[in-house]
Amino acid sequence: MSITLVGTSCPRLPWEERPAGDGRAVWRYSRNPVIRRDLIPGGAHASNSIFNSAVVPFGDGFAGVFRCDDRCRRMDLHQGTSPDGLAWTLAPQPIAFVPEDPAQPASEYKYDPRVTRLDDRWYVTWCNGCHGPTIGLAWTTDFATFHQMENAFLPHNRNGVLFPRRIRDRYVMLSRPSDTGHTPFGDIWISQSPDLRYWGGHRHVMSPTVFADSGWQSTKVGAGPVPIETSEGWLLLYHGVLTSCNGFVYSMGAALLDLEQPWKVIRRSRPYLLSPQTDYECVGDVPNVVFPCAALTDAPSGRIAIYYGAADTVTGLAFTRIDWLMDFLRENALPG
Amino acid sequence: MSITLVGTSCPRLPWEERPAGDGRAVWRYSRNPVIRRDLIPGGAHASNSIFNSAVVPFGDGFAGVFRCDDRCRRMDLHQGTSPDGLAWTLAPQPIAFVPEDPAQPASEYKYDPRVTRLDDRWYVTWCNGCHGPTIGLAWTTDFATFHQMENAFLPHNRNGVLFPRRIRDRYVMLSRPSDTGHTPFGDIWISQSPDLRYWGGHRHVMSPTVFADSGWQSTKVGAGPVPIETSEGWLLLYHGVLTSCNGFVYSMGAALLDLEQPWKVIRRSRPYLLSPQTDYECVGDVPNVVFPCAALTDAPSGRIAIYYGAADTVTGLAFTRIDWLMDFLRENALPG
Amino acid sequence: MSITLVGTSCPRLPWEERPAGDGRAVWRYSRNPVIRRDLIPGGAHASNSIFNSAVVPFGDGFAGVFRCDDRCRRMDLHQGTSPDGLAWTLAPQPIAFVPEDPAQPASEYKYDPRVTRLDDRWYVTWCNGCHGPTIGLAWTTDFATFHQMENAFLPHNRNGVLFPRRIRDRYVMLSRPSDTGHTPFGDIWISQSPDLRYWGGHRHVMSPTVFADSGWQSTKVGAGPVPIETSEGWLLLYHGVLTSCNGFVYSMGAALLDLEQPWKVIRRSRPYLLSPQTDYECVGDVPNVVFPCAALTDAPSGRIAIYYGAADTVTGLAFTRIDWLMDFLRENALPG
Amino acid sequence: MSITLVGTSCPRLPWEERPAGDGRAVWRYSRNPVIRRDLIPGGAHASNSIFNSAVVPFGDGFAGVFRCDDRCRRMDLHQGTSPDGLAWTLAPQPIAFVPEDPAQPASEYKYDPRVTRLDDRWYVTWCNGCHGPTIGLAWTTDFATFHQMENAFLPHNRNGVLFPRRIRDRYVMLSRPSDTGHTPFGDIWISQSPDLRYWGGHRHVMSPTVFADSGWQSTKVGAGPVPIETSEGWLLLYHGVLTSCNGFVYSMGAALLDLEQPWKVIRRSRPYLLSPQTDYECVGDVPNVVFPCAALTDAPSGRIAIYYGAADTVTGLAFTRIDWLMDFLRENALPG
Amino acid sequence: MSITLVGTSCPRLPWEERPAGDGRAVWRYSRNPVIRRDLIPGGAHASNSIFNSAVVPFGDGFAGVFRCDDRCRRMDLHQGTSPDGLAWTLAPQPIAFVPEDPAQPASEYKYDPRVTRLDDRWYVTWCNGCHGPTIGLAWTTDFATFHQMENAFLPHNRNGVLFPRRIRDRYVMLSRPSDTGHTPFGDIWISQSPDLRYWGGHRHVMSPTVFADSGWQSTKVGAGPVPIETSEGWLLLYHGVLTSCNGFVYSMGAALLDLEQPWKVIRRSRPYLLSPQTDYECVGDVPNVVFPCAALTDAPSGRIAIYYGAADTVTGLAFTRIDWLMDFLRENALPG
Amino acid sequence: MSITLVGTSCPRLPWEERPAGDGRAVWRYSRNPVIRRDLIPGGAHASNSIFNSAVVPFGDGFAGVFRCDDRCRRMDLHQGTSPDGLAWTLAPQPIAFVPEDPAQPASEYKYDPRVTRLDDRWYVTWCNGCHGPTIGLAWTTDFATFHQMENAFLPHNRNGVLFPRRIRDRYVMLSRPSDTGHTPFGDIWISQSPDLRYWGGHRHVMSPTVFADSGWQSTKVGAGPVPIETSEGWLLLYHGVLTSCNGFVYSMGAALLDLEQPWKVIRRSRPYLLSPQTDYECVGDVPNVVFPCAALTDAPSGRIAIYYGAADTVTGLAFTRIDWLMDFLRENALPG
Repeated sequence: MSITLVGTSCPRLPWEERPAGDGRAVWRYSRNPVIRRDLIPGGAHASNSIFNSAVVPFGDGFAGVFRCDDRCRRMDLHQGTSPDGLAWTLAPQPIAFVPEDPAQPASEYKYDPRVTRLDDRWYVTWCNGCHGPTIGLAWTTDFATFHQMENAFLPHNRNGVLFPRRIRDRYVMLSRPSDTGHTPFGDIWISQSPDLRYWGGHRHVMSPTVFADSGWQSTKVGAGPVPIETSEGWLLLYHGVLTSCNGFVYSMGAALLDLEQPWKVIRRSRPYLLSPQTDYECVGDVPNVVFPCAALTDAPSGRIAIYYGAADTVTGLAFTRIDWLMDFLRENALPG
Repeated sequence: MSITLVGTSCPRLPWEERPAGDGRAVWRYSRNPVIRRDLIPGGAHASNSIFNSAVVPFGDGFAGVFRCDDRCRRMDLHQGTSPDGLAWTLAPQPIAFVPEDPAQPASEYKYDPRVTRLDDRWYVTWCNGCHGPTIGLAWTTDFATFHQMENAFLPHNRNGVLFPRRIRDRYVMLSRPSDTGHTPFGDIWISQSPDLRYWGGHRHVMSPTVFADSGWQSTKVGAGPVPIETSEGWLLLYHGVLTSCNGFVYSMGAALLDLEQPWKVIRRSRPYLLSPQTDYECVGDVPNVVFPCAALTDAPSGRIAIYYGAADTVTGLAFTRIDWLMDFLRENALPG
Repeated sequence: MSITLVGTSCPRLPWEERPAGDGRAVWRYSRNPVIRRDLIPGGAHASNSIFNSAVVPFGDGFAGVFRCDDRCRRMDLHQGTSPDGLAWTLAPQPIAFVPEDPAQPASEYKYDPRVTRLDDRWYVTWCNGCHGPTIGLAWTTDFATFHQMENAFLPHNRNGVLFPRRIRDRYVMLSRPSDTGHTPFGDIWISQSPDLRYWGGHRHVMSPTVFADSGWQSTKVGAGPVPIETSEGWLLLYHGVLTSCNGFVYSMGAALLDLEQPWKVIRRSRPYLLSPQTDYECVGDVPNVVFPCAALTDAPSGRIAIYYGAADTVTGLAFTRIDWLMDFLRENALPG
Repeated sequence: MSITLVGTSCPRLPWEERPAGDGRAVWRYSRNPVIRRDLIPGGAHASNSIFNSAVVPFGDGFAGVFRCDDRCRRMDLHQGTSPDGLAWTLAPQPIAFVPEDPAQPASEYKYDPRVTRLDDRWYVTWCNGCHGPTIGLAWTTDFATFHQMENAFLPHNRNGVLFPRRIRDRYVMLSRPSDTGHTPFGDIWISQSPDLRYWGGHRHVMSPTVFADSGWQSTKVGAGPVPIETSEGWLLLYHGVLTSCNGFVYSMGAALLDLEQPWKVIRRSRPYLLSPQTDYECVGDVPNVVFPCAALTDAPSGRIAIYYGAADTVTGLAFTRIDWLMDFLRENALPG
Repeated sequence: MSITLVGTSCPRLPWEERPAGDGRAVWRYSRNPVIRRDLIPGGAHASNSIFNSAVVPFGDGFAGVFRCDDRCRRMDLHQGTSPDGLAWTLAPQPIAFVPEDPAQPASEYKYDPRVTRLDDRWYVTWCNGCHGPTIGLAWTTDFATFHQMENAFLPHNRNGVLFPRRIRDRYVMLSRPSDTGHTPFGDIWISQSPDLRYWGGHRHVMSPTVFADSGWQSTKVGAGPVPIETSEGWLLLYHGVLTSCNGFVYSMGAALLDLEQPWKVIRRSRPYLLSPQTDYECVGDVPNVVFPCAALTDAPSGRIAIYYGAADTVTGLAFTRIDWLMDFLRENALPG
Repeated sequence: MSITLVGTSCPRLPWEERPAGDGRAVWRYSRNPVIRRDLIPGGAHASNSIFNSAVVPFGDGFAGVFRCDDRCRRMDLHQGTSPDGLAWTLAPQPIAFVPEDPAQPASEYKYDPRVTRLDDRWYVTWCNGCHGPTIGLAWTTDFATFHQMENAFLPHNRNGVLFPRRIRDRYVMLSRPSDTGHTPFGDIWISQSPDLRYWGGHRHVMSPTVFADSGWQSTKVGAGPVPIETSEGWLLLYHGVLTSCNGFVYSMGAALLDLEQPWKVIRRSRPYLLSPQTDYECVGDVPNVVFPCAALTDAPSGRIAIYYGAADTVTGLAFTRIDWLMDFLRENALPG
C-alpha cells in the first residue's frame, strides 16, 4: 500500500513536472530563483537579499513571511502575498510584531522564519535576537497583525519549527541548539509544551553523521520546513552541513519521524536530495548554500513544492512527489 | 534600617570570626581546604577531587550533594552528611537517581550540584550530560532516594540554580547558557515554570563586564549558591571569569536582585569578593579557580558560610556577615 | 543650499549616466571590469590580477599606481597611464622606488596604493611590507621617478590615506591599525605630522558597528579613496567587512568628516553603497570583495567616478553624483 | 641540446594546440571540464563530483582510477576507460579492492588516486582512511582486479605518488605528511623501500615558500602526477596552496628533481603554471582549486596532457610541451 | 595462577615499600624529585630542566639517556650513570651521535628518549627534529658512543618506543603520530620492520577515550616506558591527556597487550595510576604533567620502578608491583 | 679593558651579594617578593596585585610608578616612595595625570610603566588603553604632578621604553607592536622623535628566535627596563616568551645595542638570565612570568638591581654586576 499525504488539496500549488529522463527525487524550478534579491527595490528597507523564507496557502492564493536582509545587512521579516506562489508582492516595511505582554524582551534581529498552520492560527517561529539567537514565536489570523509571544527557549538556538498539530496533547517544536557565532555543531531536538508558553520534555532527535558515512551532514543538521504528515510518519526535510577547507556547504536531506513519538527517526537519507550546484546556489553572499524553510503540499496528488534559500541571497523552488521521495528514502537510508 | 536575612536560624553553622585587623567582607576558613581531594580513598569511585558541591542543614546536622570526580575523571554526584559542616562522610558510591518517567533520557555525567529547599522537598539541580551539558533536576525528602525529573532546558546549559520559593506563583531558575566545550562566554538568565516541568518566561539577568570596568568578570558570569533572601532583595553570590594569557581565572562576586522581579539587578559588585590566592586555589587540576556553589545562613545573626570549589580539586569554606557584605556591595557597586 | 565639491574640473572624467529607473546613489560601469586581470600579459611580472589601485588626473589624461599581483602572487605597484580613465597602459615592470635615505628599510612587498595630490607633488601611500605590513610613503612629480620616504608608522598597519591638503598646518593621514594576518578587527584612525616624517596627534575616527545596526561593516572598516573635500565636510568612501561562515565580505560605504577636525564623524552610512553582487565581484581570487581605492571628481558637475578592486582580481568602476550621494547619506545615516 | 622525455610514444594522446598569440606554457582544453560532475548519473553511487583522478594509457586507449564522491559525499575510487582520453566510461560501483592479507586494516574512505606503471603492473596510490588519512597502495594488471597492499605509512599523510621506476634499487614514493583536518601546512618528502612493504630512508624534498617570494605556494605543497622522466631530471608537477581570508587557493607549479637523488630540487617554478581562473575552477564544492593528479606523455613529440581536479567538483584537462615547460621553469625559477 | 615478569633480576633496583594503609597500586618515592632541574649547574649546557628520561641497568649500576633542556630551552639528550638509580651523574655535554651514513639528515633538536635493550645493543629512540618532529633511532654498546640510524618514520611523530625483542621475526615499534605543534590528538600505533631501517605493517593500537568514560585520557594517549614482558602479555605504561580550560593535564595509565599481536589490547585502565598532585608535578615549566618514560624491573620479586617527568621540569620516581598492578588493571578495566 | 657603566653613583642601591658557590650572572633577593600583592590593603583601590613596575633614585631615596591592579582587576598606576628601595609606601589612589591638552584622548586603563630620567624630567611611559593598547607618555619633576602628553603611537603597542638621552639629536623609544589581545607575536622596534610629540624613523631591532635556537624567546620579545648606558653599548634587559601547551612562559634575557645606532644588536643572550622557578614566579594570577621593568645602577661599583613582575602578582628583585653580566653575554651570545 502506498504512502499518502495527510491534509487538504492545494489546487494552485506551483508546479513543474520532472524533466524527462531525470531520475532524481527532487528537481529544481526551471525559472529559479523564484524570488530575486532585490524584490524590495528601494526605501529604508530596500532588500539586499531574500531567502530562507516561509510560505503557506492563504485565502485564494498564498501568503508568506520572508527573511529580507536590507542593505545594512540587518535581518528582518516581511509579510508577502502571491496569487500563484511564484510572483510575490512583499511589504516594503518589516512586520511590526505586537507583543502580547509589554514586559517581553525586545528583538534585536529576526531571521529564518517558518510558518505553521495550527488550529485556526498561523504561528510564525524564527531565529530571534535576544542576547544571542533564540526561537521567537508569534501568531496571526490574517497576515496583517502578528502577535508576538514569549521566546520559546533560552538562547542560543536556531531553526525552531512547530509541528502542525498537537501530539499526545502537547505542542511540539523542533530546534537546533547553537552557540553565539557560526556554530560548528548542531543536533535536532524536540521540545513539548502544554500551552506554547512553557516548554519541557526535551528529546534528542538526530545528530550529524560521521564524515565517512554521509559527509554532507557531518557538521550540523537542522529542521527545514514544517514537518509534513504522511500515512507513515512525519516527513522532515532538513539541512545538513559539511565543513570544507573553504567554509560550510549546506545541502538538503529528508527523514521520516514516528507519528506519535516524533523524536524517533524511522528512516533518514544518506545522500542529499539537493546540494548547491547552480550558479545562484554557489555564488552569492554566502556561497554554497541550499537551505529549505517551507513546503506546500497537495494531498490528493502527493505533490510537494519546496522553497529554499540559495547562497543566503535569493529564494529557489524545487519539486518532489511524496511517493518518489519515499522510494528514495527507503533505497538510500542511512544505516541505523 | 539595616538589612536582615529572611529565614530560620542555624545554630550549628560552621563559623570562624574574622581575623582582627582584616577589613575584608569575606574571609577564608583557617583550616581550608575543608574537604580534601581524596576523602573517598578507594573503591571503584575513589575520588580524584571533591569540589563545586552543595550543602544544606538537614536533621540535626547537615547533608550535601558533592561533585566527586573519580580517578577516571568521570564526574558524578555523591551524597554526604556531617554533624558540623566541617567533617564530612561521603557515600562511596554515586547517587543512583530514580527517574520519574522511564522514558527520560539517561545522564552521561553529572557535575556542579546545587541543593534548594523548597516546600517540603530538597531539589537538586546540576549540570547534566545529555547530548551536551544541560540542567538536571531531582528531588529528595531524605537524602537517600533522589527522584530525577526531566531536564529543565535544552542543552547547552550550566549552573542551573533554583530559587528557594515561588515568585509570583512561578518556580524560578537561574542558568548560564553555554556551548559544547570550555565556553568562552556566559550570561545569567532566569526562567519561570508553573510546575518545574515546563519552562518559559526567560529573562536576561546579567552579562560579563567590559574588561576595563571589572576584569575579573569580563569573560563569563554564572550563579553560585541558591539565592539568599534578604529584606532588600535576593543576594546572589556568583562566579566571574577572566581570560589570562594562561587560561581562565574564576573569582567570586555578589549581586542583589529584586525580590519580585529577580531579573532586575539592584546592585552588583565591581571588585571580586574572593579570588584564587592561596595554594589550594592556585594549584590543582585547574589552577586559579574559586567557584562558590552553596551557602549556609543563620538569619538571626546574619552569618553566612560559603562553600566553594578550589582549583577544581578541593572544597574551601569562607565566611561573611550579611551587613558587612551589603556594606561592601553598596560601596563597591558596578556603575549601572 | 546644496552641497558642492571643492576642487577643479575634470572634463575627461570617465562617466556613464545612471540607468533610467535606477534609484541607487552609486551605479556600476556597464562595461566592467574596466581593468582585466591579465592586462600585463607576459614577462617576469605578468599579472595574475590588477585591483585596489589608484588613479588621478595627470596631464591631458590620467595616471595611476596599480596593485599588480604577478603569477607568483607577489604584490607590487606598477605605474600606468590612460587618455580617458578607461583604457589603461601599465608598465610591465614594477615601480623602482628611489629611497630618499639609503638607510631606510627595504620593502618586502607593496599593495593597495592610494595617490594624493598635495602641493605640487603626488604622494603615494600603500601597505608596505617591513617586518609586517605598515604604511609606505613616496612622492613623484612626473609618475616616472618615485622618491620613497620613511614608513609613516610602526607595523602593523594598512590602508594609509593622505588628505589632499594640510589641516590646521598639519599633514593628516588616515590608517587602519592591523595585525600580522587576515586581521579580524579594524578601526580608522587619523595621525598628524608637521613634515610627513614624524607623526603624532593620533585620533580615533570610527569603529566597526554592532552587527544588528549595520552588519556589512561589523568586522572592520578602512579608508578608501583620498577624502574628497566638499562644502559640508570631507567625503570619505570606505570599506566595511562582514564575517560570514564562509569568510569576509567587503562592501563600500560613505562618511562625512568635519573639515577642520576630520576625526569628527558628521554622518556615516548605515546601508552599504555597493556590495559584491556581480560575477566579477563575487568570483575570483578572493570572492565577495568590493574595495574602493580611488575617486576622480569633476567639481562643477558634482560627478564622481570610483575605482574599486573586485574579488581581489580585477578593477571595477562605479559612478555617483555628490548631491545624490549626500541625499543618500542624510537619509541613511547610522544613528549616533 | 634540448630536453627530451624518456618513455614511449602515445599516439592517441588527447591534444589541442596552443591558441595563437597565447604565450603561456600551459593552456586549458577548450571544452573543459573534460569530465563533468554527474558522469555517474544514478544508482547507489551516483556521483556528486569527479575530480583529482588518475589516467594512464591502457590497451588501445586509456584507463583510469577516478575519485568519485557520491551524493552522500562519501569518497571512493572508480575504474574507468576511454578510447581517446576525453570521453570516459566509469564503472557505476567503486573498485572492490582485494586485500593481499586479510589482516590488513580496512579502508574508511579513499580519495585522490594516482596510478604508476612500474614493471609489469599498475600501482595505485591514494589517500586512504585508516584512523586518519594515510597512503593506500594497490596493484592491478588488468584494471579489473585490484590487489590492496599494506598502507605505506603511518597516518597522517596525503598525496602519495610512486615513481615509475626503481632508483638505486629502491622503490621511491613522494608524500605530504598532514594532520587530521584541513591541514594548514605541508612539505613534500621522499621515502624509499626495497619491496613496497617496508619504507625508510625518508628525505625532505621541498617546503612551502615565504609569502613574499611566491605566495601561491606559501601554505603547503604536494606532489601531483607521477613524476615524468626527462633527460635532465624528474619533472614534478605539484600543487601549492595560498591562504586567503576566504580560504585556501590551490594552484599548479613544476619542479625538476635530480634523477638519482630525487630529493634534490634542481629547479622549481616561482610563478604558478595554472591557477583557478575559469568558472569551473572558481565555483563548485570547494571554490578556487586547481589540483593536478595525472599526466599523459608522448615522448617523441614532447607533448604532455595534464588532468586536474577543478573546484573539487569536475576534472579539467590542460596541455604543455616539455620544451616550453622547461623554458618556463628556467626563466621563472625560485631563487635557491 | 599469578602473573610473572619475564626477564632478569635487578638486585639494585631503587625501591621503597608502599606506605602502610595506602591501597594505591602505584606510589611515589618519598624523596622526589629524584632528579632536580639544575643537576647540570653550569657551562654551555647548564640545565633548565631534566625530565622525560630513560634509564636501564648497566654494568654494576645504571645508565641512562636524559632529556636536558638548557637555559636557552634547547632540547637535547645527555648520557648519565648512577650506582643506585637515585644519585645520578650527568655528562655536561649532550651526546654527540655518530651518523651511520653521512647523508642522513641532521637533527634540529632531540627530546623524550627511551632506551631498549635488544640483542646485545641498547637502542635509543627519541623525538627527533627534522622538518618537524619524528622518531630518531640510535644504538650503543657502551653508553659512550651512540650510532645514529635513519629516522624510523616520516614526520610528524612522537613517543617512539621499541619493544625489547623481535615478535614474529619483526622488530616492533610503538609511536604516536602527531602534528607540528602542541598536538591536540594522538593515537598509539605499532609498526614493524625486518631490519630497523624500513618500516611497515602499521597497526592501530589504541585511541583516546570518550570524556565521559575516562576523561584523563580523552585528548591523546602515547606510549611511556619500553613495554614490560609478563606471562600474560606486554605491560604498557602510557600517558593520557585531558584538556582542561587551563591547558593539558598529563597522567599515567596501563594497558596489557597481546604477546604475539601486540596491537591487540587485552585490557586497559579506566582510572589513571598517577596524576599530577604533588607540588613538583603541578608547578613548573608546564604545570600538571606526569609523563613516564622508563621502568626498571626485578623479575623474581615483581617489583617495578618507574621514572617519570614531572611538570616538564624534574624527574620523579614511583613504584609498583606487577601483581598489584595487574589486580588494579583487572578491577579497573575500561569496558571494551 | 673592562666595561663600565655610564652614570652616577647610587650609594643606597638595594643590594645583596651573590651566594657563595652560585655561578649565575643574575641572582634573586633572598627576601622576595620585595613587594607583596596586597600592599594597598583597603579602600576603593585595594590592590589585587602589584608588579611590572618602575623605580628610580629620587631625592635621598627612591620613587616609583607602580602597576596596581585593584580587586576589580582594573589596571592603574600608583606613585610610591621608599628610603631604601625595599620598603615601599604606595599612594592609595592612582595617579591623576593632568593632560597637557584637554583634547587629548582619555585613558581607559594603564599598565606596565617605565620611568626614564632625561634632562631635568622623569618621563613615564606605559601601556595606555585608547581604543586598544598603545604607548602613553607623561612627565613629572616631583612625582606628585604628572603631565600627560599625547600617545606616542597608534595602537596596538606595548612595552614603550624611552632611552635616557637623545641620540643623534633625536629622542628614541623602544616598543613592541601588538594586537588587541594576548598577542602571540612581538618584535622590538625603535622610533625617533625631534620633540617627543611626533615620531618617525622607525627601525626594527630584534625578533623572536627560532625555537630550536633559543626557545624561551621564540614567541615574542619586548624591552624591559630603561636601557643602561655602558662603555660598550646600551645594555637592554628584555623579556622573551615561550608558548607551552599550558600557555605563555615569560623569562628575562639581555642584549647589547650600538650606542649611536641602537637598532643594531651587537650581542644577544641565547640562554635566559632568569626564568620562572620560584613559587612566587610560578604561582599567581598568571603562572610562570618573570617580567623586568626597572633597574637601578651604581656606576662606580657596576652593581645593578633589577625589579621584575612575578606571576603578574608580586614584584621581585634580582641583582647582577655589569662585568659578570657582560661575561655571560659574551659567552652565551645567540649566533648572528
